[in-house]
Amino acid sequence: MVAVHLESHEYGKSRVRLMRVMRDSDSHRVLELTVAVRLEGDFAAAYTDAENRQVVATDTMKNTIYALGKDHTIDTIESFALALARHFPATYAQVTGARIEIEETPWNAIPVGGRPHPHGFSRVDGEQATVSVTVTGDHEEIVSGLQGLVVLKTTDSAFEDFFRDSLTTLPEASERLFATKISAHWRIARVAAKYEEVRTRARTALIETFATHRSRSVQHTLHDMAVGLLEVCPEVDRVDLDLPNLHVLPVDLTPFGRTNDLEVFVPTDEPHGTIRATIARG
Amino acid sequence: MVAVHLESHEYGKSRVRLMRVMRDSDSHRVLELTVAVRLEGDFAAAYTDAENRQVVATDTMKNTIYALGKDHTIDTIESFALALARHFPATYAQVTGARIEIEETPWNAIPVGGRPHPHGFSRVDGEQATVSVTVTGDHEEIVSGLQGLVVLKTTDSAFEDFFRDSLTTLPEASERLFATKISAHWRIARVAAKYEEVRTRARTALIETFATHRSRSVQHTLHDMAVGLLEVCPEVDRVDLDLPNLHVLPVDLTPFGRTNDLEVFVPTDEPHGTIRATIARG
Amino acid sequence: MVAVHLESHEYGKSRVRLMRVMRDSDSHRVLELTVAVRLEGDFAAAYTDAENRQVVATDTMKNTIYALGKDHTIDTIESFALALARHFPATYAQVTGARIEIEETPWNAIPVGGRPHPHGFSRVDGEQATVSVTVTGDHEEIVSGLQGLVVLKTTDSAFEDFFRDSLTTLPEASERLFATKISAHWRIARVAAKYEEVRTRARTALIETFATHRSRSVQHTLHDMAVGLLEVCPEVDRVDLDLPNLHVLPVDLTPFGRTNDLEVFVPTDEPHGTIRATIARG
Amino acid sequence: MVAVHLESHEYGKSRVRLMRVMRDSDSHRVLELTVAVRLEGDFAAAYTDAENRQVVATDTMKNTIYALGKDHTIDTIESFALALARHFPATYAQVTGARIEIEETPWNAIPVGGRPHPHGFSRVDGEQATVSVTVTGDHEEIVSGLQGLVVLKTTDSAFEDFFRDSLTTLPEASERLFATKISAHWRIARVAAKYEEVRTRARTALIETFATHRSRSVQHTLHDMAVGLLEVCPEVDRVDLDLPNLHVLPVDLTPFGRTNDLEVFVPTDEPHGTIRATIARG
Repeated sequence: MVAVHLESHEYGKSRVRLMRVMRDSDSHRVLELTVAVRLEGDFAAAYTDAENRQVVATDTMKNTIYALGKDHTIDTIESFALALARHFPATYAQVTGARIEIEETPWNAIPVGGRPHPHGFSRVDGEQATVSVTVTGDHEEIVSGLQGLVVLKTTDSAFEDFFRDSLTTLPEASERLFATKISAHWRIARVAAKYEEVRTRARTALIETFATHRSRSVQHTLHDMAVGLLEVCPEVDRVDLDLPNLHVLPVDLTPFGRTNDLEVFVPTDEPHGTIRATIARG
Repeated sequence: MVAVHLESHEYGKSRVRLMRVMRDSDSHRVLELTVAVRLEGDFAAAYTDAENRQVVATDTMKNTIYALGKDHTIDTIESFALALARHFPATYAQVTGARIEIEETPWNAIPVGGRPHPHGFSRVDGEQATVSVTVTGDHEEIVSGLQGLVVLKTTDSAFEDFFRDSLTTLPEASERLFATKISAHWRIARVAAKYEEVRTRARTALIETFATHRSRSVQHTLHDMAVGLLEVCPEVDRVDLDLPNLHVLPVDLTPFGRTNDLEVFVPTDEPHGTIRATIARG
Repeated sequence: MVAVHLESHEYGKSRVRLMRVMRDSDSHRVLELTVAVRLEGDFAAAYTDAENRQVVATDTMKNTIYALGKDHTIDTIESFALALARHFPATYAQVTGARIEIEETPWNAIPVGGRPHPHGFSRVDGEQATVSVTVTGDHEEIVSGLQGLVVLKTTDSAFEDFFRDSLTTLPEASERLFATKISAHWRIARVAAKYEEVRTRARTALIETFATHRSRSVQHTLHDMAVGLLEVCPEVDRVDLDLPNLHVLPVDLTPFGRTNDLEVFVPTDEPHGTIRATIARG
Repeated sequence: MVAVHLESHEYGKSRVRLMRVMRDSDSHRVLELTVAVRLEGDFAAAYTDAENRQVVATDTMKNTIYALGKDHTIDTIESFALALARHFPATYAQVTGARIEIEETPWNAIPVGGRPHPHGFSRVDGEQATVSVTVTGDHEEIVSGLQGLVVLKTTDSAFEDFFRDSLTTLPEASERLFATKISAHWRIARVAAKYEEVRTRARTALIETFATHRSRSVQHTLHDMAVGLLEVCPEVDRVDLDLPNLHVLPVDLTPFGRTNDLEVFVPTDEPHGTIRATIARG
């Protein structure tokens, strides 16, 4: 028998979908969430000895999301994630840590005659609000974020003076299209923060900086987007940004007797550049 | 040797992606299209005799999309699709019919300080504008549409008094959530129509009717959405609607000692109802 | 009020997933199906008058799939689809026609020590077996098929002597890679056919013809694959083939001082050629 | 101006697709890979000072994959990943570390008349072989793996005696279906290992253990699969397994007057359990 040890382990439930309808005023509100739970704790015997006595069923985690989803008027995904993350260690002695991840798919009221309808909604696809809350002993960490937001600049983007060698064929570009799908995570340094206000300021800083930046590279713009966020969000102490370079390639029209003055492009999904960094205060 | 005949055939190019940037004013515009071309004509010998002399390469169709994409300031997807659909039979004697299908993924100017930025854009995912143009001999047909628009009603939706038998378990519902992904196609009866104005009126009629309808079934709402469209779009003579019933199921909270007053739901992707109809004038 | 009429309508349930486990011998069998039901009949009043009395709930269709799924030892997807398609018009006076579509995701026994394990299985992704059965009055039509089967030839594929004009840039190719995702549908002329035997012969004819063909174009190979199928399947009277041309592009290595003797390629998903035809006996 | 620092950063190219055709014998071989490159090094100035002089363009990384893809007869994805991972720090003084990740989509020769055809191939979807190679200074780490392999047990799977509280509704199950999508990574302790032989032994141990295990929980089976791998692969010193619990739910047939003796199930995609662990020697 080979000698082994359980180096690390975690388990939970993923992709629990919840639609919460709030009917507390004439104008309804709807919130569509996808929730994941991860627990750490005294569960090693389930792996090594087929001993389930301490195991909280992942089905019970799902039930917990629906039960707490009923109990809370969900004001922010941060507050709901925090309530869930605190629940598990508070309820089960064997749980030492819990992580809750929530993705929110936004819904807007349908405009009817120019005014938001009280109970008709349309879904916004693509961009999602996210939060990850980790509770371990006395420590609570809240990381808000957004993902899936695709943006594009049609000028003020260059990539020049980079390293060249025998395998380099990319031309210098004083003008190019720059498209990316923003994935941003900002850590909330103060638990009592007004998460929605932070989110609004963070998102505005990210997209306004992107739009107005004179970009010398994806790295350059990424850095200044993070700095822009930190400038307007004193509640945040660290920002992670993942900005894939979604190449939008000019079409060579010369074989057809035409010139392409940065007008005709092919958007591509693959391959793509991957640029990531973490920028923190101090 | 078995006796066979070529009953029907068509070929073309699919998923040709085009991003067109228009820089004709200080505020740029961007249009992202996915285009498909299908040709019918004198191509049987390619199948039966390996004779390629009449075959327009699908690569040439792709080139045509980019070349004509350069030549046109693309005002509407309808006008661009029409230009493409007319090109192929006009250019190639062996082409008897052409069908062009375009899907448009919309982009909006990023608001900076409350005003649309002139060259920063964000993509809108989910809903797409569509058009299908068919040119066969003298006949031209333009069918505009939209797809991917997910909408939801939180009240004014019932499904009652339906047929029951031994395999029926669905309870009568005087109140339920009704979610669907609208796929709509409206045929333009007059080629010179102002397609964008028609589109705006058609879309508004569809979503306003959905929001304000007292729905007795998906069928019922589908019918009235189509009628609503026809009422405000005299340019349209036929509407196809495909409204899947995207079930949003109430969670049974009684095992947890809670009641669910239509507040806590599970959105589901599968299975789903499928409801389709074509409604025409006259 | 605008004058309209209901030109056509159909409704049903889509993406009903069923896993059927057969434990009638020591070696279990598993069948994973995705089923869709479409009904036509006397349902117009649901659209035009909010009258549900004749409407069979799509939830009842789902229940029917599970109930009949229990009653039948499912030998072939054809026989199960036929049982379902006959059930609806036989059970409901208001149903005039039913169409059942089934996709099967295959599972294989896991080999253990070289022999198939009696109750451990692994799923085969990609290729699926399909069937579409339509019952309308006395008429029954069975169309078997397969989809999602991606195949590739590394030689014996050319595309030459095609039509050239000012927008043609594709070079003549006496050798190229030819990749496609086979979507095939064959109509069974005799209802009592042994569907599995037909399927085995049909599939073998399709892929053997593809592999051994000296292809002059996708059209050419498509035609001969259909003829090959008809030659070995007398039970079949018509074949539809959809063979997208999934372009696998040679990489230009000359900038790096290397030659590419058809060794280094980029597989692409978009754009792709689309080639379809229907070949029938007679 | 807010005080910030660049806490961490990395960049690279993702989803570079390569199809390598080897024609060195009458029977061709094809290898389809998706490659990602990540570099760490002296790149901070690109973020903080818009200084690109040290930046290796991600386009150059792509070119490198194709150039080295030509130079190598790719015997294993491990050897190719190692060659790429060594290339970057060896070539560029500013690169301190490189990570290469490869996913392989397998292709099989099409059988013709019972024998593998020399140049006709069919793709196997779902399961992929993977490797991740990291080179940092003198340190080289090779982690082989597989992903996407969906397996199922129709008996010998139970989940009983777990923790129960007021939110627990899951019944004890002495028999249930157990389906999972295996994601496995095994670290090669010896760089000179015969990777393909290790892979064959590792894969066999994983699936044979899964099939023959008397499972008391996913955790239990996960642990014994990892131990089984370590027993037959002395070259491996650590195994990571991620085994989502893909719930296959029995259908309640009692409303239809039928019993369900573990015969009729609904496969589901969401929610799913998530069970992960790392098991190491010693």
